[in-house]
Parts: sequence; structure tokens; C-alpha cells
Amino acid sequence: MKHATTTYRFRPVIFAAILLSTLAAATFARADENELHVDGIRLNATMTHMKTFGMNEAGGSNRVAYSVDNKDALAYLSTLMLESGLTPQIDVAGNLLGRRAGKVAGLAPVITGSHIDTVPNGGHYDGIVGAMAAIEVARTLHDADYVTDHPLEFVVWSNEEGGKIGSRSLNGSVKVEEFALPSLGDKSLGDGIRFIGGDPERISLNVRKAGDVAALIELHIEQGAILDREGISIGVVEGIVGIKRWNVSVDGFANHAGTTPMDQRQDAMYAAALVVAKIREIITAEPGRQVGTVGRIQAYPGAPNVIPGQVTFSLEIRDLDMAKIDRLFGLIQSAGSELADNNATEIRFDHFYTSPAAITDERFKKLINDSADALGLNSMHMPSGAGHDAQSLGGIAPLGMIFVPSKDGISHAPTEFTSAQQITDGANVLLQTIIGLDEVLN
Amino acid sequence: MKHATTTYRFRPVIFAAILLSTLAAATFARADENELHVDGIRLNATMTHMKTFGMNEAGGSNRVAYSVDNKDALAYLSTLMLESGLTPQIDVAGNLLGRRAGKVAGLAPVITGSHIDTVPNGGHYDGIVGAMAAIEVARTLHDADYVTDHPLEFVVWSNEEGGKIGSRSLNGSVKVEEFALPSLGDKSLGDGIRFIGGDPERISLNVRKAGDVAALIELHIEQGAILDREGISIGVVEGIVGIKRWNVSVDGFANHAGTTPMDQRQDAMYAAALVVAKIREIITAEPGRQVGTVGRIQAYPGAPNVIPGQVTFSLEIRDLDMAKIDRLFGLIQSAGSELADNNATEIRFDHFYTSPAAITDERFKKLINDSADALGLNSMHMPSGAGHDAQSLGGIAPLGMIFVPSKDGISHAPTEFTSAQQITDGANVLLQTIIGLDEVLN
Repeated sequence: MKHATTTYRFRPVIFAAILLSTLAAATFARADENELHVDGIRLNATMTHMKTFGMNEAGGSNRVAYSVDNKDALAYLSTLMLESGLTPQIDVAGNLLGRRAGKVAGLAPVITGSHIDTVPNGGHYDGIVGAMAAIEVARTLHDADYVTDHPLEFVVWSNEEGGKIGSRSLNGSVKVEEFALPSLGDKSLGDGIRFIGGDPERISLNVRKAGDVAALIELHIEQGAILDREGISIGVVEGIVGIKRWNVSVDGFANHAGTTPMDQRQDAMYAAALVVAKIREIITAEPGRQVGTVGRIQAYPGAPNVIPGQVTFSLEIRDLDMAKIDRLFGLIQSAGSELADNNATEIRFDHFYTSPAAITDERFKKLINDSADALGLNSMHMPSGAGHDAQSLGGIAPLGMIFVPSKDGISHAPTEFTSAQQITDGANVLLQTIIGLDEVLN
Repeated sequence: MKHATTTYRFRPVIFAAILLSTLAAATFARADENELHVDGIRLNATMTHMKTFGMNEAGGSNRVAYSVDNKDALAYLSTLMLESGLTPQIDVAGNLLGRRAGKVAGLAPVITGSHIDTVPNGGHYDGIVGAMAAIEVARTLHDADYVTDHPLEFVVWSNEEGGKIGSRSLNGSVKVEEFALPSLGDKSLGDGIRFIGGDPERISLNVRKAGDVAALIELHIEQGAILDREGISIGVVEGIVGIKRWNVSVDGFANHAGTTPMDQRQDAMYAAALVVAKIREIITAEPGRQVGTVGRIQAYPGAPNVIPGQVTFSLEIRDLDMAKIDRLFGLIQSAGSELADNNATEIRFDHFYTSPAAITDERFKKLINDSADALGLNSMHMPSGAGHDAQSLGGIAPLGMIFVPSKDGISHAPTEFTSAQQITDGANVLLQTIIGLDEVLN
């Protein structure tokens, strides 16, 4: 199943041809946007071909960032970009970019794309749908000689699964110190970026400031089950939720499980269990799409015959509204303190992570909604509970995100699945939305 | 603080002297038992000297079984036994035994003693009190030329903390396969037994059957806080509790903590928290001294951003009544199944350990109680929540156990403490109880 790699080389002849066709298109009348459709068969053929880069025995994908499979896939995408009239290049952060000129001078680019790296034993749709659809949109515009006012940048972000390194290079949050850290594969982050053609020492060249980017729009699989269960084709993403995480520690007194009567225990496990149960009650006590999760727990010393003197667990709360996260945390903190007090234990919440919410642009949501309507596709508004490359551009550019269904909500697993029709529908909404926002942004 | 070791050698002259004094005592009138008292100053001096074998920087004891310190301490105890008119010997399991002849032929021996090995960074009282008191009782009887009807065996059991190896050799449950296993120190079990003078390949020589032992009586620190808090000198042990342990597994469905709405989760953590809380409620819902403990817990995959698909935890229940343990477990099992069902998860209880309860002899409890009364000491009946060497003789001999207080219930730690007076009181109760049961058993 291994694909013979195509090494990308800069080809001046092709480049010239693209340049000419772009200039030519600018002089033609704009095609009616409703007549433009992506080629679903072609798009899904590229999706299928992408599976060959890193397919494992479980049928999943081991195409982790900076692997040989990742590099080979980028070479394949470079040829697709060339066929789509784009001039591919790897930037300093290892992002693959294909730029398409716009016809109005001085406008900032509209960026679209996603990632193609996977988690180990991941699936074939997370990220890939948005990356392949972006290139298909470029090809469709190219084939139709449709030139937007804004320049378009089609991007395959580097190493999304290992920390959104590629997209985060645009907001300046990737620090040189990170390069020595291991990636999900066998290379350090720095070596990995170099391996796929980047130049980590010069990563600051990628930084964009507000206004440098006209818009960022990303198509992605939902990675949840809402669209699939509701039978809805298109998710109009209201924003990427903010995340806060805490390490919670309940301290009691470790003691002999045989000699310590029940009424003399300072049992950190019992108090922690009450708090964990309470967290869910508090999160679900009010309407909204907030989620709260305890994903990790440990008891110390951790023997069946010792009453735990300490139990630690993680708490994560997500919502589009950071203030709501803080308010819910406040409720959990005070309920937790009361439960701990009542059980002769102490509780401590140590905040260790914040990812700010990234709200999408109202105009883009309307465009996505209207594009779906025009294509006869049903849609619904929803938050993105997962993080995405798009959020790295929050504060730099207005954002839009389109979701397509994930079967049974499964993601990061070989059984991750979105149908060919759903992918085609998503790509058509992406195409129409880009055409629409090209006008809206003027 | 290191003690200059005294190597035990067989000394025929001393042996002869002991033998003569024993024979002589048999011809004298029995001393009034109420006039016999241990020498508390002498006893506590030996307790203090024992600290020197393995004292660590924290002030605790590193005298783990089969260490050089353990061996040196046994040599010291051998000299004490000799001074007490006993003939010390190391048996095949590494137990140090000192036998004192009785004056009625054909009677099985009364055994008393405890252990002197400690956990790493343990204390100076767990086990040691019972071992030193036993030798002090021997010395008191020797000094008074008091000869019991039954032969008496004063024993220092080998490796209690690492699995009651010495005492279990008497019930035949120590298997040759265990000898290759590591002990708490740097030696295998087999090498350790050999190191202190045992002969592990011949361990089956130690096996005793019902009737081979007239009685087993052990003095020990409580290792709990009941006597200390109540200000009571003597615990009349009703038995050593039975223990059952289960591995509990709650299975849900691991999913993305951001994209999975609260009402679509199969959250193993939430269900497990409800069950853990319920366990305590069930255990404490009825009167009695039963205890239930969840000491270990783990969530899988165990990341802050993943809803756990599985949570495993340990469940331990202890009580003197095995049927009660089973009944309480049944309640937990059915409540757990209901909670799991209600939260779209499944629960499984895998039993992995049983230690049967060892009930003490009614006559011995009365003797201990009466001895305490006669000495002007208050006492209370209580179960032993911890395991002890005595239980190894369950089914072979009638059992008795005497507890003395542990300050704040602390055990297996450098701060473990029982006062000199409490130790002396316990030793006097042991002495009187042995004298009393020597009659009762006739």
C-alpha cells in the first residue's frame, strides 16, 4: 500500500503557466458562484490515496508529524497543489502553503486548510478532510478560472496533533525552547520541522499580526456525535471552546485499612469520590453546552490495604464563554471545599492550563449557513469542543469553521469515518463560503 | 548506635545449668501467681537495646527480615533467651525458638511470641513488644523457678512483615515456589531464611497439626487508635478479622472530553465515583466494626482531556464474621450494578484475595480480661483489624491475643509509640494469662 513518493521540486515552467492563467482569469467575468461545485469523485480519490501514507495493520493511520509518511504525503500534496494552480512551498514552521493571487491589490489573504498529521493509530479524516477539501477548492477555482478579490492561501498546517505547532507559529506562541521537546514520533520538534523542510530557528518569520490575514476558514470533521445522531450535514461552528484545567488534590490521612474504624478515617478517596460526582452535577445543573471532565485520578500510597492519604485528579471545564468556565469552577471549588471539610480532609485546586475560547465571525456563520441552504443541506450551530488550528489565528483574523459529521462521534481511532458525500458537501460549503466571504470582506 | 553483635553459640555448660534449675523448680511449690510480675525496667531496657539494630536517620527501624540487623538482633535475643533459662534454636523457617519444659509429661506446648522484623522505615514496637515481653515472661518464670504444667515455647517468628513466613510454616502454607520471590530486603525469601540460619528446603518439618500446639498467645501493639483514644490499657482481642479483596472495573466508553456532550457520555469515572461513595455508605449503614476501603484507583486512558473508558479500583472488606463480609459485598455488588446501569456503564467485581478470620478462644479472652482486672488495668474487647502471626495457628491451636495501645494509632512509621508502662502492663497480662491458661487447658 506504500505510495511511491513524489519529491516536490520547484518547477518554473509550471509556475509560469499558473501565473499566466491567474492573470487571464482576472480579466474574465466572474462565474456565477452557484454554478461552482467541487469534483466530489476527485476529492474522495485524493482522500483514499492519502490513506496509503502511514496506513497501519489496524486500518488506521500512523502518519504522525515529521514521520517519513508525513513527508511523503506532503510531497503528494505538493503535486496536487501544482495541478491546482498553486505554488507550493514549505514555510519555516513546516507548513505546506499554496498561494493563489487575488485580483485586488493590497488585500490580505484568506487562508483555508487543515492538517494531515494523525495521532498514532489515528484515523483518516481528522484534519485530512479540511486539507484535501481546501486543495479541491483551489482546483475547482483554478479549473473555472475563478479569481477572488483576495489572495487565497491553501495550507496544510504542520503537527497539529502534537501542539498545533504550524498554526501557532503565526501567533508567535511557539518558543525556541520547545524545539528540544520530543514530538509524537521519533524526532525532537526542531529536528522534525527541519526533516519536512522547515527552518525552526527562523520560525518567528511566520508571525502575523492583526490585519495580516483577511480571514481564516477551516473545514473539519466534528469529532463528536451530534451531527451524526441528528442527521445533519453541516455544523456551523460558533467558536472553539475555551479550556481550563486544574490538578485537584484531596488530602486526608493515610492509615491502616484494618485497624482504623470507619468513623475515625480521614479518607481522601471517599472525599474525592464525592467531589468527582459533584462536578458532574454542577456542570449539568444548568442549560448550555459546557462540559466538565475528570480524566485522571490517583490515590496515594495506592494499596488495597491502606486508606488513601491523598487522592489527586484532573478537572477540565470547556465552554465558549470563559466567564462561564470561571463561574462553574467557583461553584465546584466551594462545593468541593464543603465536601472536604465534612470529611476531615482538605482540597486544593491548582490551575495549570488555559486555552482561550476563539469565537467565530458572525458574518462567516451566516455565510456557512446560507451556503448550506443554497446547496440543500441542513445545518445547525454548534461549538467546537475540540481544539483546531483555526483557533491559533484568534485575534489575528476573523475565523470561520465548518463541521461535517463523524460517524458515531469516533475520532483519533482507525474507525473514524465521514462518508464521501459528507466530505463533498463540506467541500462545497467551504467553496461557497470562501466565495461569499471574499465579497463580505470587501 | 550500632550494637556489637553477639554471635550465638551453643553453650553446653549454660544449657546444663538451665536443665538443672528447671528440674529443681518442678519439685518446689508453685508460687502464688498474683505475686509474679515481670521486671518492667529490665523489659524496657531490652526494648531500648533492640532499637540499635537497624535504627535509621529518621529514628525509625530498617530491620527488615533477613537483613544483617535482623540477624544481629536474633543473636542478641539468643543471649537473652539463654539468660532466661531457655535453649535458643533457629528452626528450618528461621524462627528463633526457646523451649521451657513443663512438668506434666505428654502435654503439647503453649506458644507465645511475636516478630522483630520491621517494614522499611518502620517503628520500634510492632511485633517487638510481643517478642520482648515473651522473653521477659520466660525470665520471670525462670527467676521465680515457676514451672508450668505445659511446656512453653517462646518464639520470634521469621519475616512477619513480608508475609508471616515463619508462623505460616506451621500451617504448611509456605510453598517452595515462594523461596525464589524477593523479600522486603535484598535477598530472596529462600536465601534470607538460609542467611538467618534456617533451612528452607526442609520447611515442611515445621508443619503442626491440630493438637500439636496447646495454645498460642500473642501480645502486640494495637496499630490502631482505639485504646489510645479511650485511655484503655489492655485490648482483649476477639479475633483477627477476615479479609476479602476485589478488583473492581467500571467500563464505559472513552471519548473526547471536548466534543462529547454531558448527556452522551458513558463516563466510567463518574460511575466509579458514585460506587466508591456508595461503598462507604453501605459499610457504615449498620452497626458493627466492619471496615471497607478503596485504596487504589486508576482511570484509563488517564488524560485530562479524555473521558475515561475504564476505571479500576480495589475494594477491601474486613470483619470478624466472614458471612457478614459476603453479605456486605452482595449489597455493594447490587448497588454498584444499579449505579453502573443508570450511567451507561458496566461494573465487574473480581475477587482476588481472602484471608479467613481467626477467632480467639473464649476462655483466653476471659483470662486476659481477668488478668487485667487483677492487675488493676482497664480493658476492652476488640477485633484485630490487622493480620498477625497468631492467625497462622488458626485451626491448629486455640488462640489468644492481647493488645496494648499505639499512640495516635500510628504504626509502620518511625513515630510508632507505646509507653514503657503500657509495655510492662501488657507483659504482666501476658504472664498471668499464660499461667492461667496453663491451668485452664488441663
